[in-house]
Amino acid sequence: MTEEPILLTPGPLTTAEAVKRAMLRDWGSRDADFSALTSKVMAKLLAVAKAGPDYCAVPLQGSGTFAVEAMLGTFGPREGRLLVPVNGAYAKRMVEIARRLGLDVVDEAGIPYEPLEPDRLRETLRRDPSIRSVALVHCETGAGLLNPLSALARAVAEEGRDLLVDSMSGFGALPVDAESLGFTALAASANKCLEGVPGMAFVIARRDALERAKGRSPSIVLDLAAQHAQFEADGQWRFTPPTHVVAALGGALALLEREGGPPARLKRYEENRDTLVSGMRGLGFEPFLGASHQAPIIVAFRQPRESWFSFAAFYEALKSRGFAIYGGKLAEEATFRVGTIGAIDRSTVKRFLAAAAQVLRELQRTGTGDAL
Amino acid sequence: MTEEPILLTPGPLTTAEAVKRAMLRDWGSRDADFSALTSKVMAKLLAVAKAGPDYCAVPLQGSGTFAVEAMLGTFGPREGRLLVPVNGAYAKRMVEIARRLGLDVVDEAGIPYEPLEPDRLRETLRRDPSIRSVALVHCETGAGLLNPLSALARAVAEEGRDLLVDSMSGFGALPVDAESLGFTALAASANKCLEGVPGMAFVIARRDALERAKGRSPSIVLDLAAQHAQFEADGQWRFTPPTHVVAALGGALALLEREGGPPARLKRYEENRDTLVSGMRGLGFEPFLGASHQAPIIVAFRQPRESWFSFAAFYEALKSRGFAIYGGKLAEEATFRVGTIGAIDRSTVKRFLAAAAQVLRELQRTGTGDAL
Repeated sequence: MTEEPILLTPGPLTTAEAVKRAMLRDWGSRDADFSALTSKVMAKLLAVAKAGPDYCAVPLQGSGTFAVEAMLGTFGPREGRLLVPVNGAYAKRMVEIARRLGLDVVDEAGIPYEPLEPDRLRETLRRDPSIRSVALVHCETGAGLLNPLSALARAVAEEGRDLLVDSMSGFGALPVDAESLGFTALAASANKCLEGVPGMAFVIARRDALERAKGRSPSIVLDLAAQHAQFEADGQWRFTPPTHVVAALGGALALLEREGGPPARLKRYEENRDTLVSGMRGLGFEPFLGASHQAPIIVAFRQPRESWFSFAAFYEALKSRGFAIYGGKLAEEATFRVGTIGAIDRSTVKRFLAAAAQVLRELQRTGTGDAL
Repeated sequence: MTEEPILLTPGPLTTAEAVKRAMLRDWGSRDADFSALTSKVMAKLLAVAKAGPDYCAVPLQGSGTFAVEAMLGTFGPREGRLLVPVNGAYAKRMVEIARRLGLDVVDEAGIPYEPLEPDRLRETLRRDPSIRSVALVHCETGAGLLNPLSALARAVAEEGRDLLVDSMSGFGALPVDAESLGFTALAASANKCLEGVPGMAFVIARRDALERAKGRSPSIVLDLAAQHAQFEADGQWRFTPPTHVVAALGGALALLEREGGPPARLKRYEENRDTLVSGMRGLGFEPFLGASHQAPIIVAFRQPRESWFSFAAFYEALKSRGFAIYGGKLAEEATFRVGTIGAIDRSTVKRFLAAAAQVLRELQRTGTGDAL
């Protein structure tokens, strides 16, 4: 086992020491102290989403995709169709999940690696009155692409449809304003921009929608309406919660407040991204996306086509210097990705750039990188 | 928040410091180091189950019930019926899950708080040839009741049906021998007798059954056949794994080996139970179950009917002395439960008994315990 590298990935991330140390306690899952911890964490998540009393946060064991499936299973339309505009891997996954759940799905292909267009969405909704709900991905981490959530949400609201959002990779940094977006539900996870550890996710949902959804989920464990009812009744998780992961998220939310909330975190991530993109350009690496579409979460770069470049060698050499990056293939083109989120700042990114420069020189010198 | 109490519950448990400290590292979920960790953990789980090459371990994010739903959704019969003999809360929950999944369920009530009877099971299977599979609970923690798994499994095998086992609360201590039990699948969790932290579970399943189950799960995230195929292809979890929880389970499995494996752990738990039961009897508390049915996992005691006893006061007074116990209601009778598993031994139980004696005197002296 190599020594712990800095994780420049879409998550799980490098977290703060205080977040990990919050896991050094065992909690009784039915004890009042743990119920109080859960309530506090949920209240803070609602505050991050700028959600008022019409909304609740419902936590869920598992990864972010568990929350997406729970959201689609609990709120997906039973009468009428679900529109999923697809411009990346996570929207494709929503289509796959919704179909497996037996929902009637319209998957409309957007322009690959271009943000979704609100006008086009509006036209689709006008053309097909059988569409009852729209499911959208906020930020597509496959390419690092940011979709214009506010304008898309406005189109959905003006056309009188329900909105379900996968805001997994951006929640905690990218602005989310529940009141103005007016979504029915939004799914996100503890281990992305909130900088907690993986093992739990959550859905922020309208109370009235949760009430209406009782008994609709095709799953017992992924039934958000039943979990919401249980919290209302006695403040308990229905099934054993990942107590240590919840405590870590509590610690992470305290750090988010101390940093100055989502706007301050977004600023740090934007600085990370800008430092990364300009440094990598200087080394000859070209970002896959145009600057205007590039979310400050993760950046995809084209792999050099020269014979001396091998991703496996590049990855291993960077890892031996203390940095774990991420692979990726976009539009049949080989890319790699470098995350800009987690408990890292510009100085971390600069150290990464110095390591990347060294590795690049080595690769060019040795020809294929096999010697590394 | 009170100081961290010893958890005398059915889990999450008090874990060893080394288990918690294993969570102080961030792992890249797609990195080779983490794949190696997952493989090592899965191999050790197979060894705990005495499973040969016909079996695989498939991990799953979430609580134990997530694994039970995944098991029923992946392996539950599509043609023919599923028999669930019910003598406790967890079997009832399996019935609820299986019905939600749309399976054709026969729920046969056993004698409440008595172990399931192999001969009766055999008769039921002979009478109803439409029953294709049987789902059983190994240990019912509601009452702390142990079912005779070996004899029940023999009846299922001899009648030529598939066996699905919920061995959640006992796995790691109670004997499980995959080869002789011949189950199709067995679900268990990290945070019971394995003494890991909550946040992941797993299913030990026959390879051929996993192959046959491709595409059958009504859920994407709970599809064990798809997760198995992914591991075979590239050693990766399909969705973000709870990396820290997996690392904690790795640490917990190392401690299990050092202790001498499941037989040594079972012996420690039996000593805990015997010390607890005789000590509590000495204080006037009566166990709910007869000694022959009592698993060494958790013990249910009848609540005293005298007016001076209040469970809330008893709980709080014990907690302020450093011990968290568990509530419970059985057969409409008020009980409470005391767990005997986790990183505790006889000396912990003796300290608990001393605290319980003190609290009891206080409650009797003050009348209602309100003053505590």
